[in-house]
Amino acid sequence: MMLKPCGVITLLTDFGLNDPFVGIMKGVIYNINPQAKIVDLTHNIESYSIRQAALILLASYKYFSKGTIHVVVVDPGVGGKRKAIAIETTNYYFIGPDNGVLLPAAKDDGIVKIINLSNKTFFLNPVSYTFHGRDIFAPCAAYLSLGINIDTFGERLNIGDVEDLSLNIIDKYSDHIVAEVIHIDKFGNLVLNVRGEVLLNRVKFGDLVQLNVHGKEVSVKFVRTFSEVSKHSPCLYIDSFGLLELGVNMGNAREFFKLNIGDKICLRIKH
Amino acid sequence: MMLKPCGVITLLTDFGLNDPFVGIMKGVIYNINPQAKIVDLTHNIESYSIRQAALILLASYKYFSKGTIHVVVVDPGVGGKRKAIAIETTNYYFIGPDNGVLLPAAKDDGIVKIINLSNKTFFLNPVSYTFHGRDIFAPCAAYLSLGINIDTFGERLNIGDVEDLSLNIIDKYSDHIVAEVIHIDKFGNLVLNVRGEVLLNRVKFGDLVQLNVHGKEVSVKFVRTFSEVSKHSPCLYIDSFGLLELGVNMGNAREFFKLNIGDKICLRIKH
Amino acid sequence: MMLKPCGVITLLTDFGLNDPFVGIMKGVIYNINPQAKIVDLTHNIESYSIRQAALILLASYKYFSKGTIHVVVVDPGVGGKRKAIAIETTNYYFIGPDNGVLLPAAKDDGIVKIINLSNKTFFLNPVSYTFHGRDIFAPCAAYLSLGINIDTFGERLNIGDVEDLSLNIIDKYSDHIVAEVIHIDKFGNLVLNVRGEVLLNRVKFGDLVQLNVHGKEVSVKFVRTFSEVSKHSPCLYIDSFGLLELGVNMGNAREFFKLNIGDKICLRIKH
Repeated sequence: MMLKPCGVITLLTDFGLNDPFVGIMKGVIYNINPQAKIVDLTHNIESYSIRQAALILLASYKYFSKGTIHVVVVDPGVGGKRKAIAIETTNYYFIGPDNGVLLPAAKDDGIVKIINLSNKTFFLNPVSYTFHGRDIFAPCAAYLSLGINIDTFGERLNIGDVEDLSLNIIDKYSDHIVAEVIHIDKFGNLVLNVRGEVLLNRVKFGDLVQLNVHGKEVSVKFVRTFSEVSKHSPCLYIDSFGLLELGVNMGNAREFFKLNIGDKICLRIKH
Repeated sequence: MMLKPCGVITLLTDFGLNDPFVGIMKGVIYNINPQAKIVDLTHNIESYSIRQAALILLASYKYFSKGTIHVVVVDPGVGGKRKAIAIETTNYYFIGPDNGVLLPAAKDDGIVKIINLSNKTFFLNPVSYTFHGRDIFAPCAAYLSLGINIDTFGERLNIGDVEDLSLNIIDKYSDHIVAEVIHIDKFGNLVLNVRGEVLLNRVKFGDLVQLNVHGKEVSVKFVRTFSEVSKHSPCLYIDSFGLLELGVNMGNAREFFKLNIGDKICLRIKH
Repeated sequence: MMLKPCGVITLLTDFGLNDPFVGIMKGVIYNINPQAKIVDLTHNIESYSIRQAALILLASYKYFSKGTIHVVVVDPGVGGKRKAIAIETTNYYFIGPDNGVLLPAAKDDGIVKIINLSNKTFFLNPVSYTFHGRDIFAPCAAYLSLGINIDTFGERLNIGDVEDLSLNIIDKYSDHIVAEVIHIDKFGNLVLNVRGEVLLNRVKFGDLVQLNVHGKEVSVKFVRTFSEVSKHSPCLYIDSFGLLELGVNMGNAREFFKLNIGDKICLRIKH
């Protein structure tokens, strides 16, 4: 059965909320499809951070209705030679620049086809050199949400024709895991590039896990949720992305551990 | 006549806007009720500040259509023993954790019934330990907005069964009022925990009110609006919440008075 | 043919996103017109900056469907003597305080009529002295979006009866242009008050333009887009507003040039 758009369009950008760029994209979308339902994933991706956007998309895409169109505009190469692409997967559509940002989520859901967005019929006219979110991605998403066949938007590409990106998520157990902080949420919780299942079959809830942070040894309890440790104590748990996360009950793990995105820590499991 | 949902769902959280948590909640809601209208109250509540969220909800809830569902997720106890509850009031529904955050607004509108959200039929499956906004509150709000009877969501609770929270709003006149700064808005205006009516019958617009701030005496004019004092001068007025507020015309009262949330000042009325 | 509202209402304010003010305005709008589609342009206008809001509105308004109602609440004179106005232009409606903020966009589209919003039937009752966004602008926009004749909202005003505001955009060529930084976007790009066409017929893409910044001479390439200069190098281009903009490929021009809003630089064209 063919995938059909459901009318929901999500937006994920590094545009911030001080400028009208996101609002303008919504204006373009409503002008083409007044019935669209637009959801902001976040617009506060660090400027140009393709990796961070790819992670957020991977963590979020599947909570939306089948047929949702996920639009990502983190696009340092705008106006240059990079292609604009649309990907149809088992349950979703993904639209954005060909810089790898869509690939982790699209591969996770199962890629069905990749289209080079080359049909200028669906672009604003003229197309600027610096704002393809407005001139290409928003109108293509809006036309796609109307049910126009994705093959009308341009020629098919093979997976080998587009930029790939790996988030290097660790999914195999080892006694000694070198993990990287790949995201820090608003509460200061530290998301690690380690799937939760990696610990799940080796460590029981309530067990201690030995961490090496900035050369210092720390013991942290593996828990279901924050409130299983006392106030202001650190803990390790499987977060809502399905990844290992370091938190502090009613506190801020970023400040507690003095860790930033890209920093590495070692996890050792006590036997 | 029974209260009926109108399709509007508001969201009030401490999730911030850098993470996709709010967007994911909207994805879950649209997946269940594609016709829902979702409004963000604010997602920048200070992390874990139940009191601040309760105040914002109290100040905002009644400007929405009858039958609006107000969802609050400021939830430091997530995954622990606290209950998830829904409250039906005279004109609204409130959904959130049982930590008191819903109570000031719900009591203000008049509580009709309180439901323990225990029917797992309306939860995402599985339920995570750290993101009940996504797994419990968003789907319950969406199903409720479809018109499903609130009693289907779980058993009734008495008011004595749930956590209460008082905002300690002063509503009685005295010559010497010890007021607390309970909110500071984007302009730096200082919201005090004193109902406007308290001054209204004792002080005329244009009168001076004597303040003691950090041990210093200051005279401030009681006005209808900022422009009744000269540029960069302080003034005292009844704000859009109905509370007393200290502002500075074209300026910033937080910086002017060097006051923060939780600080106390004395108000003395000149006779 | 008469202009008809399309149901889209945009909001542009200096309210920020920490307070519930924007959410409350949406509650008021949905209560009057449940079918409205509300788009945020931005709420992070610098407090009281009428000029910045006017620029953002001018840069954004035309990407929306014909019949969109643009509501602006940057309103330091709230509750004082300034009027509340609605403007019908060739393709849009504009609603906001009479402080000039609507004029650059309205004049750009072509003013058809200006109405003094004096008919209290369309206000919330009572009207507060400090939050006309909630009590006047939001309900008037919502009633207007229902198709109520704009003349019902109050008496007509002449262009000479309302506050004007000029953004002082330079649109004539000279060998020596003194330009002002009028906006800085999230990426640190510096928007200048010079229309792109001014350079377009005098300078070829790839040519160098001589700048004088803080007394120092700098040569910057005039390009179509960032990627035409090497990483971390500055460039000059026509931005998505149609204005000249200074950027740095994969970098931050604000930090590179140490320039802020209001700062002036000189552009000299090499022959």
